[in-house]
Formats: sequence, structure tokens, C-alpha cells
Amino acid sequence: MALAGSALALLAAAPVAARAQGGWPEPTARYTPPAGAADTSVAGLDLLPWPASISRRAGRLALDSTFTWTVSGYSDGRLVRAVDRALRRLEGRTGMILPRTPTRSGAATLVVRAAGPGMAVQGVGEDESYTLDVASGGAVLAAPTVVGIIRGLETFLQLVRGDGSGWSLPLVRIADRPRFPWRGLLVDVARHWEPPAVIERTLDAMAAVKLNVLHWHLSDDQGFRVESRRYPKLQELGSDGDYYTQDQVRAIVAYARDRGIRVVPEFDMPGHAQSWFVGYPRYASAPGPYHIAERFGVHDAVFDPAKEATYRFLDGFVGEMVKLFPDAYWHVGGDENNGKQWNANPAIQAFIQRQHLGDDAGLQAYFNRRLLEILTRYHKRMVGWDEILHPDLPRTIVIQSWRGAASLAAAARQGYDGILSSGYYLDAMGTAADYYRVDPLPDSLGLDSAQAAHVLGGEACMWGEVITPETIDSRIWPRTAAMAERFWSPKTVTDVAGMYRRLRLVDARLEELGVITDDHPAIMLRRLVPGADIAPLLTLLGAASPVSLGARYWASQTAMRFIPLTTLSEAAVPDPAGARTVGDEVRALLADAPRFAVDRGELAATFRSWRDAEPVIEAQAAASPMVEAGLPLARGLADLGAAGQEALAYLRAGTAAPASWVAQGDSLLARAARPVANLRLMVVPALRDLVAAAAAARPGAE
Amino acid sequence: MALAGSALALLAAAPVAARAQGGWPEPTARYTPPAGAADTSVAGLDLLPWPASISRRAGRLALDSTFTWTVSGYSDGRLVRAVDRALRRLEGRTGMILPRTPTRSGAATLVVRAAGPGMAVQGVGEDESYTLDVASGGAVLAAPTVVGIIRGLETFLQLVRGDGSGWSLPLVRIADRPRFPWRGLLVDVARHWEPPAVIERTLDAMAAVKLNVLHWHLSDDQGFRVESRRYPKLQELGSDGDYYTQDQVRAIVAYARDRGIRVVPEFDMPGHAQSWFVGYPRYASAPGPYHIAERFGVHDAVFDPAKEATYRFLDGFVGEMVKLFPDAYWHVGGDENNGKQWNANPAIQAFIQRQHLGDDAGLQAYFNRRLLEILTRYHKRMVGWDEILHPDLPRTIVIQSWRGAASLAAAARQGYDGILSSGYYLDAMGTAADYYRVDPLPDSLGLDSAQAAHVLGGEACMWGEVITPETIDSRIWPRTAAMAERFWSPKTVTDVAGMYRRLRLVDARLEELGVITDDHPAIMLRRLVPGADIAPLLTLLGAASPVSLGARYWASQTAMRFIPLTTLSEAAVPDPAGARTVGDEVRALLADAPRFAVDRGELAATFRSWRDAEPVIEAQAAASPMVEAGLPLARGLADLGAAGQEALAYLRAGTAAPASWVAQGDSLLARAARPVANLRLMVVPALRDLVAAAAAARPGAE
Repeated sequence: MALAGSALALLAAAPVAARAQGGWPEPTARYTPPAGAADTSVAGLDLLPWPASISRRAGRLALDSTFTWTVSGYSDGRLVRAVDRALRRLEGRTGMILPRTPTRSGAATLVVRAAGPGMAVQGVGEDESYTLDVASGGAVLAAPTVVGIIRGLETFLQLVRGDGSGWSLPLVRIADRPRFPWRGLLVDVARHWEPPAVIERTLDAMAAVKLNVLHWHLSDDQGFRVESRRYPKLQELGSDGDYYTQDQVRAIVAYARDRGIRVVPEFDMPGHAQSWFVGYPRYASAPGPYHIAERFGVHDAVFDPAKEATYRFLDGFVGEMVKLFPDAYWHVGGDENNGKQWNANPAIQAFIQRQHLGDDAGLQAYFNRRLLEILTRYHKRMVGWDEILHPDLPRTIVIQSWRGAASLAAAARQGYDGILSSGYYLDAMGTAADYYRVDPLPDSLGLDSAQAAHVLGGEACMWGEVITPETIDSRIWPRTAAMAERFWSPKTVTDVAGMYRRLRLVDARLEELGVITDDHPAIMLRRLVPGADIAPLLTLLGAASPVSLGARYWASQTAMRFIPLTTLSEAAVPDPAGARTVGDEVRALLADAPRFAVDRGELAATFRSWRDAEPVIEAQAAASPMVEAGLPLARGLADLGAAGQEALAYLRAGTAAPASWVAQGDSLLARAARPVANLRLMVVPALRDLVAAAAAARPGAE
Repeated sequence: MALAGSALALLAAAPVAARAQGGWPEPTARYTPPAGAADTSVAGLDLLPWPASISRRAGRLALDSTFTWTVSGYSDGRLVRAVDRALRRLEGRTGMILPRTPTRSGAATLVVRAAGPGMAVQGVGEDESYTLDVASGGAVLAAPTVVGIIRGLETFLQLVRGDGSGWSLPLVRIADRPRFPWRGLLVDVARHWEPPAVIERTLDAMAAVKLNVLHWHLSDDQGFRVESRRYPKLQELGSDGDYYTQDQVRAIVAYARDRGIRVVPEFDMPGHAQSWFVGYPRYASAPGPYHIAERFGVHDAVFDPAKEATYRFLDGFVGEMVKLFPDAYWHVGGDENNGKQWNANPAIQAFIQRQHLGDDAGLQAYFNRRLLEILTRYHKRMVGWDEILHPDLPRTIVIQSWRGAASLAAAARQGYDGILSSGYYLDAMGTAADYYRVDPLPDSLGLDSAQAAHVLGGEACMWGEVITPETIDSRIWPRTAAMAERFWSPKTVTDVAGMYRRLRLVDARLEELGVITDDHPAIMLRRLVPGADIAPLLTLLGAASPVSLGARYWASQTAMRFIPLTTLSEAAVPDPAGARTVGDEVRALLADAPRFAVDRGELAATFRSWRDAEPVIEAQAAASPMVEAGLPLARGLADLGAAGQEALAYLRAGTAAPASWVAQGDSLLARAARPVANLRLMVVPALRDLVAAAAAARPGAE
């Protein structure tokens, strides 16, 4: 509770007033955020997440061959490695060779000053605040902990810019700290395996946007992904051979700690556990034999809570795993147990009677209490999904909500800490704006400050049903960066256009860390049409998004882990910039009623490109059945292009489109709105607005 | 010798006549290669490397939901994994889910039939031959060894194509085997570290083009890259922390064996060994202390051959390492010892006198003899660069030639086995055609067949001075695929245009394995101009290649391992397709004299794009000093564009360009030919031809 309380204190204090500090000139222009929405467009600053407090004045700190750096105050290996990584990235970005060793003088282009190491095992109470003062003589990055320095180094890198005079930083004074102490990303490596290199680059990208929790979903019906030496059949029979060795887990946890990121493991139970029972069927509630699940969705396999052997097994397992995962929190999953095996097992039903547990929910609460005893013995706090909430469980457990903010608020009112994930599911294929608009602590919850303190933060969720090492980057990024700002920045930072403007630069910077997003469609399309021109397919995917996991799941009778994830839908990215641009242009055009003279050239060119793409894609489909699957989508887009061209003509002429044209437009819009090959056209709403405007056009002032 | 002899027998037998085989219909059109150059354009077949023998007939084998497969004859884990990998790639390419288990019936869409496992440790004598018979009822892949099956599966995958009726293979009968038994790629991980994932995807790509030796350059002045448990200061002090653990080495060697690839380690000595001496200065010829070399080039540090302790150390080291590297060959380097430390050390000079070694060359031969004794005790054959050749060394050593085919021929005449690398240096940034034209056994050598049998094959060399994990793919591929064909296919396969046509498809297929080549420039350019349009810079890099390592090295006074490798030159790729296209178009146009009517529109558009790119790049350079470095190149290209447009006008008009125009053209061509920012314009020769043609234009028949 104390930890969450301090988080709230941070929140209340934001934006923090820039502290007066000896030796630094007063800013010539002090930035004061407006009472309503915070202004993230302070000239030329593209920070993301936006800091709690920032002031800017005229001038620049040049970055050139005279660059020096030093570490004053506390230092340790983690700090030195963080500075070294930042300088290597700065070298890569500027092409300059920077000094490998600190200057001995107290003054330097970059002075890094930590007061202390931070917590021995990073926790929810870690102080992540920092101040960054950039003056023309040098920059001072100061923080109470090494983690604060790690956060500030990312801000420092985001400030670097080039112009005709070379590289420099603008003169700013930043005092920054997070709004929420738990800012996470769930990565499911059970449904599809992600090798260590993917996890590492994901951690690098998380650190770049100041996220601090990797929630590692390590087991599920479709796979068990960690080496157990005590129960080796877990990974040997439960994984198809793809799992992390204990050395790899240790290396990843250390890699995360070096970046100020906690690793919270999740071993989902009692349900979502079929892969465990391939090697150890005796702990399941039905006899088996079991195989690794091939289908996705909810399975029947569930731990047997009525056997003492189950708890001895779990005690042994947790006892082994706690040596790998030092974090104070332990995620037990707890979701989506369908109860079928329990209902069908007379011994379990008798156990419910004998123990007066009432029903399956009571039995699950019993299981969780026993699990809690084990975790408590190993000094771990239990985290679980909504379903673990039960009157029998103490207030020390933490609820992660996939059901929604209301569910979380109910838990908070009862005194449970919580984390919001509802609204943050990346596989829902929402836009960055969709996620950005979800606040973990909306005023509508009506929580008092003590209750609100129980909301620790939020977690983006990357479920693994239809992702691979090749597609995961473009599914996580850049959208997760928008959530990272939601979790870090003051609540008043809400300008969507400003977020997108800054997101584009974040995207380019993430590629520096080996994360591929913008280039993802080109890379995958080249394989679909080897040796051919991919521009028409890029045009198509610029207007289309993969459908959500749910839509994909329900549309397919073969939703299973063997589905080849190399289709057009995999080549597409969610929230494509091209579709956003069309939306913006249509809005601008319609706002210019009745003249409709804004930017018409751009829109007309886009509509033409949609029509031009279709015959080329048609020809390519003849040589590629995988492209053929997307043909109806290409035809739908060409139809929209034609309708768009005609709508522009009506608007230009100031003539209302005839009813028959409008009816035809409505019908092709309805057709184009239907998903094809797991893709949906994101430009339909914009075209619908345009058609409607054409129907209502009247002579304008042009 | 016997091994090399059998290689020559293969060569003489190529192309192998398709064996008559019961149950297979006779081909309707038998392919017979012409006496001169082999024809690689058999309609619609895009195999690379081109097989020794192929016949084709009308019809197709459909790949659809009825697909089945089976393994008949010999089977083992390696074979099963190879088939599984091929089927997964086929799934990815077709989007179909294929059966995970073999059919029990003897007939199947794909029957895999190995006669035996092949050698327990793959050697130069491994039989890699296979036959692939594709009939309308099914395909049979047969081979004497699992390695032959691995080769044939790649051919099978290269035959898969799509059309309006779905996926299929053409009906072919292929009998294939390599011309040379040693087809290698050297990867230098000492100058810049390459993590295991890079090595693994490189091995995947090597297997895709039937290369069979990874020559792993594991130590050099700038780094020692393998964990030694006996001498841990080797990696701890000699590597900056980037080295392969013994587990990683074992995993990579196993990964290579699974793909029919041998791993030959190189520990370079007595020179190129400075990193060894950081931890163990006592084995050097001067007292030290030593640090990891920062500069590239030849260093003085060299083992002390006069001390017995040196040999005890090397014996201990080799004794430990042979447990990691099962291959029968062991590369000792042996190159570029400048002798300075030996000359300056009185004890070493006295040793030369005492042992009657004559001079430094005699001392190096002595060192090599002692090293040979050690290697022989561990059952290893010694391989080294040209310099190890010395009358005192036995015929069992193998010479790898960086000096040239003549050097190799001289060795072969003395009875030494040899491998050609001269002409195959990837860092020379040659075109695929350059490498393709170099034959390891040109007739000009004048070797008799016994001598020729000593030429085991060739090795492409990827030296590591200016490569990183990010750039290495585009430096190795696709150019190395052209060499792979040179090493595998019959000598008569020499058509450069056909090679390029097939290379383009190989390129797209390599991306399936995670190797990024075509998209490399876009990925790196996006970081140079975050959020901006990269098309103009892509236009520039479409006409430019990175300069050779030599040119780069000599141009720079700071040629060292700290140079940031993120510049425009790194974003460029060698042998850019855009420049080749311009060359082809200019040739076609000039061949159409005096009408000059061929394809002028394409050329004119290209020239215009060069001119249009320049002002945009100029604007971007104002915000990016790294782009600014390439501005003179962009200006040079714009000048060439203008000259090209004017030349086209003279040709079209049939009017000879005036002398003043020609002089101006010559002068801007000379300017454009000069490298800028480690880039050179590859289109200068084509433009030179065009300007010359304009100078000589006369009224045509248009």
C-alpha cells in the first residue's frame, strides 16, 4: 500500500516545478502547461514519453569532437554500462567517435550524477525520477538512483538533433518522474516461441520509452518455456524443444535489470496448463494422456486441487524457479478455467463437499490460498487475473484486470492493488490513439485518493497466438510507446496529434535498437512476390490493418498453432500511417466546406494509386496464391478509390451526388468494410464521410 | 589426394546424364547443355546453383491440401529435422498447413530416400550428390547420404512456384553433385563481433545455396572470441566481453552439421595474435603489456617461437579446443607476420642461429612444424594462408590462397592441396559478376589432372573490419550466392545475365531465412532522416556502392574498430541493382545505333530522378550532418543526370554534341568518379559511354 501511495504522491506532484539550482542560468522562457491538456509541442522537442516538467530557453549545447563525459557521485557497473550504451547509440546516430573513458575534470559535456544505486532488487517503490539540465556549457543528469539515470539517458538521447551547424541539444531543464510505478508489457512466449534475442531487443525498446516491467507469460496450454532441472519433463515434453535454459533466463533477467526493468514471470494455473501435463499427467484433474495443445482458446486441462501431491509438486517447482526470478511479484495467471474436468471428477467434487468449498469458484479460491502459502514462504506477492479475486484471499494479492477498469475499481475499493490491461491488448489491433485514450485511473471510476493509490499502473499485452519472431516487433511497436506515455506522463498529456507526431520519431529511433516496424511490410511482401515490384501491395497495406485476434479466431475453423504466419495479414501493420493520413486529409477537406479546396491534390493522388494498384496486384496474384487471397481487398480499395475520385468531383462542382450514386457508394462501402484474408480496410470511415459529403454538396465559394 | 581426385572425377562427369529409372515416364524434352556455355534459362527454372544435369518435360506436380510426405530407406534425427525445416519453409511460402507426420503408404507427394547417414564427421570426401525426380504423381528425392538429401531439399524448394491454379513443381529430372568438395565462406568475428544468431542465419543461407564450409575466423589482433576454460584470460581480457561460450560453439557446430556444413576454426598465429597477449603476454616476442588492438592492419605482436613454454601453451589450448571442433581441418592463419618483434629480440635471433633456421621465414616454418606436430597429435590437418608454404613442411598441409590462382597453382604443382580465396574477398565490394567470373581452376593454370585434383575449391571471405551484425547480411548476400554457383555448378555455367536473373529470386528466398538484403538501405536510411521521406536517398544509393575495405582503410587516418558503422556507406549495398539496370539500358540503347530508340523513357526517368533527388537530399542534410557527408555524391549524381538527359537529346536529334559539351561532360564524369564518404557512383562507366556516343551522334533512321 505504501508503495502505491507514493505513486499517487508522484502523480499529485506532477508537473514538478523545476528546482532552482545553483550555477544554472534562469530559463528565458518558462514552460507552463495549460490548465487543461498539456502542451507537448514545445517548439522542436519530440520527447516521448513527455516529461512531468520541462522548461526551455534559447540556445544550444553543441555535440562535437570536444565532447567529454564524466560520472560524479555514485557509480557501479550498471551505471557505467548504461552510460556506455547511450554513448554507443550516440556514436551510431552522429557518426562521431566519442571518448571511451570519462574525463577527470569535474566539468564535461555530459555529467552523470547518481546519489545511490537504487533497490538491490528493483521494486514497485524504486525511485525513477531524474533531472536533466542542459546548458550551453554542458548537461547535468542527476538522479537519486541508477534507475533514474537510466531513464534520463533516454531523454538525453531524444534531445539530440542535427542541423547545418552539426549536432546539438536544445537548452532545457527537465524534472521528470513517472505517474505510475508499474508500466508493463506482457509478452506471451507460450503460444509461439520467441528466442532470447527477441526478448532482448524488446527490453531495449521498452527502456527507450521508460517501461519498467516485462511480464513474461512463460507457460500455457501450447507450450512450457523454461528449463526446470527438478521436473525436466516440463520443458522436454511440454515445449517442442523451444524453451529458455536457466542460463538464458538469468541472462535475460540481468539484461532487464541493466535497463531498469523488472521481470515478473507468469506460470498460468490452474487452467491454461495443458503443456505441464504432457510430462506430469498425475497433477491434472483427468487422467490423460496429454499432448501440447494445438488449438488456441480455452482447454479443459486443469490442475487437481484436491491432491496434496499437487502442492508438493508446485512447491518444488516454485522453489526452483524463485532462484531465477528475483522480483517480489509472481504471476499465477488464474484465468479461464472452464471447470469441466473438476465437474467430471467425483473425487474432486467429494473434496469440495468435504472442505465446504461450495462450488468450483470456492475450489479455485482454495487452490489459490494454497498457492499463496507457497509463494509467501518464498517471499513472493501473488499477482493474477481478475478471476483470482475472491473474499477468501487476503489484500496482499494483486489483480491484473483483463475485464476492465470497473473490475479494477471494484477490487481497489476492497483494498486490492491492481494493474489495468483491459483496453491495452495489442492483438486487438487497435490504433495507437485507441490505447492512448484509455486511462488506468479515469475520473469516472470515482475512487477516492486512498482507493486510487491501489491502481499501480497498466500493462500492454502481446498475446502470442498469431505472432512470430518476425512479426512481433511490428505488433508491439510503435503502438506500445503510446501506452508507455499514458503510464509515465502527467494525466493532462492527451493530445493525439502530438502523440502521433512524436511517435513517428520514436519509431525511427527504435530501429536503432534492431526493432523493425516501418520496413516490416516491405520485408514480408518481397517474399510473397519474389523479384516483382512490391509498391502496389505496399499501397494496399498502407490502407489496411490485420484484423483482431478475436476476429481471426472466430473466422477460422483451423485456429491452431501450425497456421503459417507469413500471409498478407502478417505483412500488414496495425494502425498504418497511410490510412491515418487519408483520414486527416478528408477531415481537413470537409472542414473547409463549402469550398472543399484543402489538399485535394494529395487525396486525388491517393485515390488514383488505389485504382492503379489493383490491376498489378491482379497480375501478381496469378503467380502467387498467397497474393490471390487478398485480391477482393485490392478490388475493394480500387472501388473506394473510384468513389473517392467521384466524390471529389461532386464536391468541386458543388453539385449534390444523385441518390443512385450514393446508394451504390453505400453498397461498395459495406462490401469494403468486410474483412478479407484477415485484413480490414482502415480507410472505410473516411470514405464514408466523403461520400456523405458528396451527397450533400452544394455550390461553394470557390 | 584421393578425396580431391574424386572431386575431379565429379567435375569430369558433369553434366551427369539423367539415369533411366523404372516407373518414371521419359522426358518429352531432354535438356542438353550446349558445348560452350551451359544454358541456365531452361524455361521458368530459377535454380541456383544450377544443377549438374537436368531434364524437363511438360506438366506439373500440384502442391495442395492432398500433400503427403514420407521417408523411405535410411532415416535419422538429422534427416527428419531437415525434412521438417523444409516443410515449415514450404508452409510459410504457400500458406498451407502441411502434415506433421509422414504418410504410412509408400507413395507420397514427396518421397525422401537416403541410402545411409554419410560420414560420422562430415569431411571433404562426403558424398553430396542427389537425384530429384518430379513426376505428376509425386516427387522422389534420393541420395546416398543425408547430406545429399539436405542439398536436394533446397532444390525441391527452389522448384516450387505458384500460378492461377495454385502451387506446383514443374516436372524435372535432376541428377546433381558438386564440382568442388570445399565450398566455403569465411566469417571474421574477431574485428567485429557477430552474435550466434547472425552465425545461424548465415548457416541457413549457406545451406540454401549448397555451401558446405564455414571458415570461422575466431581470433585476431582485435579480439579473441571463444571461451577457453583452461586459459580464461584469453576471452576475459582479449574480447571486451563478446565471445562464444563453449555451449554456444557446440550449438553452432551442431546447427551447421544439421545443414551439411563443416565448421573449420581459424586461430590465427604466430601474427595477428595481439588479443591473446593481453591475458598471456609471456608467449609474445616482446614483453608487453598488450591491449586489444584498436587499429586495423598488420601489428607487431607475434608468438615467441623460441620458447618451449609457447608450445606447451598451444598444446594445452588446441587440446581443449579440439573437443569443440570435430572437423578434420584446423586453420592456423599464418599470414602477415611483419617480423619486427622477432628482429628486435636477441634471444629469438640467437635461437635462429642456434637452430640453423636462417631467417624469419625459417623461424616461421619451424613454428609451423611444431604447431603441425601438435595438430597431428590431435588428428587435425593444418590449413593456412599462402605464407605457411615452405619446403620444410609436408604435403599434408593445405594452402588457402589470398595471393591468387598462380600461387595456388604453384602449390598444387608441389603436391599441396589448396583452396582459392583470391578474387573472392567480399570486402573488396566487387559485383556478383566480378566474383562469378573467377574460376578456381581456370584452364590458364595449365595444371594436369593430378595437379588440378589438389584444388579443393574456394572460399568467399567476409573480413570484419567494417561490418556489424546489422550490415553483414547485405555484404555477404546475395553476392556469395554467385560464388556458391561457381563452386558447385559445372564449369560451363557462366552466363552472367542468367546468374543475375536467378540471383534476384535467391535474394527474396534468403529473406525467408531472416537474411535482410534488399531492405537493408531503407532500414538504415530511416534512422538517418527520422520521420522524413527516404525515397531520394534510396535513389542515390541505388546508384552507389560502398568503397572497398582497402580504399576505406587508406582514405582514413582513424581506421579503427570504434568507427561508427551507421553511415550512408553502411546503408548502401555493393552491386546495387539500380546501377546495373542503368548499365543494361545504356548498352541496349547504344546497341540500337543509329536509331537509339530502345527504352529511352526508362533512362530519361532515371536521369530525372537523380536530378530531383538532389534538392531534397540537400534539405535533409541541413538537419542531418550524416546526410551532409553524402551531399557531394548527390550533386555528382544530379550532374550525371543532367548530362544523361542532354546526351539523350543529342542522340535523339542525331546531332553530335559540341566539343565544349563533351569536355564539360568529361570533367564532371571525372569528378563523379571520385569516392565521397566511402561511396562510389557505380553508374559512371555507363554515363561515360553515353557521353561518348553523344559526341559521335549522327542523323539516324528514326
